[in-house]
Amino acid sequence: MDTQVDVKKMAQTAKSSTFSMATASLKQKNAALQAMRENLKKDQDLILQANLKDIALAKANGLNEALLERLSLQNKLEGILHDIEQVIHLPDPVGEAYEEKTLQNGILLTKYRTAIGVLGIIYESRPNVTIDVSALAIKSGNCAILRGGSETLHTNQVLVEIIQKSLTSAGLPSKAIQLITSSDRSQVNQLLQLDEFIDLIIPRGGTSLQEFCRKNSTIPVITGGVGICHLFVDETADLQRSLSVILNAKTQRPTVCNALDTLLVHASIAKTFLPQIIEALGQKQVSLHLDQTGWDLAKAPCCKLATDHDWDTEWLSLVLGIKIVKDVQGAIDHIHLHSTGHSDGILTENKQNAEHFVKAIDSAAVYVNASTRFTDGGQFGLGAEVAISTQKLHARGPMGLTELTSYKWVIRGDYQVRT
Amino acid sequence: MDTQVDVKKMAQTAKSSTFSMATASLKQKNAALQAMRENLKKDQDLILQANLKDIALAKANGLNEALLERLSLQNKLEGILHDIEQVIHLPDPVGEAYEEKTLQNGILLTKYRTAIGVLGIIYESRPNVTIDVSALAIKSGNCAILRGGSETLHTNQVLVEIIQKSLTSAGLPSKAIQLITSSDRSQVNQLLQLDEFIDLIIPRGGTSLQEFCRKNSTIPVITGGVGICHLFVDETADLQRSLSVILNAKTQRPTVCNALDTLLVHASIAKTFLPQIIEALGQKQVSLHLDQTGWDLAKAPCCKLATDHDWDTEWLSLVLGIKIVKDVQGAIDHIHLHSTGHSDGILTENKQNAEHFVKAIDSAAVYVNASTRFTDGGQFGLGAEVAISTQKLHARGPMGLTELTSYKWVIRGDYQVRT
Repeated sequence: MDTQVDVKKMAQTAKSSTFSMATASLKQKNAALQAMRENLKKDQDLILQANLKDIALAKANGLNEALLERLSLQNKLEGILHDIEQVIHLPDPVGEAYEEKTLQNGILLTKYRTAIGVLGIIYESRPNVTIDVSALAIKSGNCAILRGGSETLHTNQVLVEIIQKSLTSAGLPSKAIQLITSSDRSQVNQLLQLDEFIDLIIPRGGTSLQEFCRKNSTIPVITGGVGICHLFVDETADLQRSLSVILNAKTQRPTVCNALDTLLVHASIAKTFLPQIIEALGQKQVSLHLDQTGWDLAKAPCCKLATDHDWDTEWLSLVLGIKIVKDVQGAIDHIHLHSTGHSDGILTENKQNAEHFVKAIDSAAVYVNASTRFTDGGQFGLGAEVAISTQKLHARGPMGLTELTSYKWVIRGDYQVRT
Repeated sequence: MDTQVDVKKMAQTAKSSTFSMATASLKQKNAALQAMRENLKKDQDLILQANLKDIALAKANGLNEALLERLSLQNKLEGILHDIEQVIHLPDPVGEAYEEKTLQNGILLTKYRTAIGVLGIIYESRPNVTIDVSALAIKSGNCAILRGGSETLHTNQVLVEIIQKSLTSAGLPSKAIQLITSSDRSQVNQLLQLDEFIDLIIPRGGTSLQEFCRKNSTIPVITGGVGICHLFVDETADLQRSLSVILNAKTQRPTVCNALDTLLVHASIAKTFLPQIIEALGQKQVSLHLDQTGWDLAKAPCCKLATDHDWDTEWLSLVLGIKIVKDVQGAIDHIHLHSTGHSDGILTENKQNAEHFVKAIDSAAVYVNASTRFTDGGQFGLGAEVAISTQKLHARGPMGLTELTSYKWVIRGDYQVRT
């Protein structure tokens, strides 16, 4: 019971800080971010100490190497400080008048960007997310309640103390950013019901977390970050350059959501292209799951026969599904059935096929002749990202500062009445 | 169980129609709307017959005059046909490339507006909503599952048959618009859980319906349409013209969500202004609920002492709460506590107070010197509206065609890879 009261109290405190944050000047918000940078630098020993404590506990709990690597802040602080600096340089997303018209009756109608209010952000392992999302929340005039993974608790506690200290030094409410420190999962459930105080839930994690939030939240949820990504190699594609795109999409960072999961190959080039793929990807230790046609064409040590389940799998590792399709329509049909609406692309020299694909595929990011790895707020020029949305309401694809805002209509008149 | 299967089937059918609707040409969508106009005209006897049946049943069930009036289509068909014509004249909201930039690596990044997919719209009594929202759904390339009030069932059945016939005649899937005909409330509950097929729920109705949808839906919900609207009369306001704005906001159509609920009056003008308000509103049969200060100033037959509950009441009738406040800040504080974030305004000649108010009030529509009655898609130049949102995600205030769209990012490259 005690902890329940705490989460509600946190949400109330956040709500009561929204006005100060939403109306804070750019100067004040940037001062808080600058203080964050300086304090993170000054307190880096403290941070790394807490981080080592988390790592030791995680090791004792048998976490695997990949997760330990995500947990560690060793050699990552410089990058984090650089990210904050980038956010400082971004323009203020709040207050912008971005649509204006004078109505026939003389009323001046203006749309202004506003902060959303209180964000609830639920995420896993990587403690740098704590800094990233806090910086974006502050810059967009929002408050945030953070719920990181229990394995990063000590690190996150130190980081949030630093953030709160920095807010105070800029004259902003320290409790604009708060951390849920209990690892009790019922607190997440409670958080999801506090629609009186919280305006938006952003879960950053796997399918089960997304699903859990969608099912249990009475607050709007932006789900995303789960990407079964496809590339289709058309018969007219430049095969040499396609190969480098495929290699990049699959192997440059296989554990992330915009990495390639399924390669679709036009039947007429399969015989030529498949051996090239097998060689190039084999060299990178990629294991290939081929459909029956592909398997018949090219039985090789790094290959195995795909199962039906493979087409609905986000690999997050060095595995790639490969399917031979009849033509661009065959590729579209497969993507319609199996895509999660994240990032899907075509490699082709045929402009008509490219435009047909672009029109037919309804994913957050649709590619023609480029690696799916570009689906990213930084790459898209948003300056940063808080998440990648794969749903269609409010924001789709990378969510930067603008996507953390709402708007209001301001009507300036001369005592007009409606007739 | 049978009806449950039906709603799921309906949702599946809708989902399978999304591609045709999302990629339909403007010409095709307008042809469907034009056919709707003609068929509604041709079949008007049929419609009015069904409508009379609903009215007779409603009378037998003891529905009050106001609800019977909302239910009736008598003399309303011309207006409905005119509304459809207006939607025909609006530009296609789908397919527009509205943001484009070339990245440093040469990639061309474009944002295109897309249809959302399947809308679930739950509404009450007025059968003209059936036509309004169907026309907007069709024009925005969306499918819709409608759930009207059981008291309009016969009318809605005829209307949806006409809509489906019109879709067919334009070569579009007839089941893009479907009506839930069972009055079983559990079907609404089931509809709210079909997140696999439905992308957005829009409840149009009172607080309890909104609350029910928010609590029970696993699909994003846009809530709204509940407006406790305020006007603050500052000490510098032009009192004569303010009076006409107040009269308009309260009495021009008292049953709608953008009608005035609470009037806040600057203390320094209360003594002068209150008698004028009492006289003018009294003539219009408005009953006034005054706070203690107001009550002490002006005990009159049409007045009574307000209760605390009154400040949180959306009147939807000829009642107005009146409170005397110290200054603009007093007004802001009251609005922060009691507004539903719909439409709130200030009447003033003091520019500084006006801008302070505009910055401080975070409602969908913030007014300076105009009647709150203008919060409306048609009035704002959106051409039409499907609902008025009072939440902050996706759309805020009147929702027209653009607000029924999402977007996708299209990346056109020359085989770029991420480094």
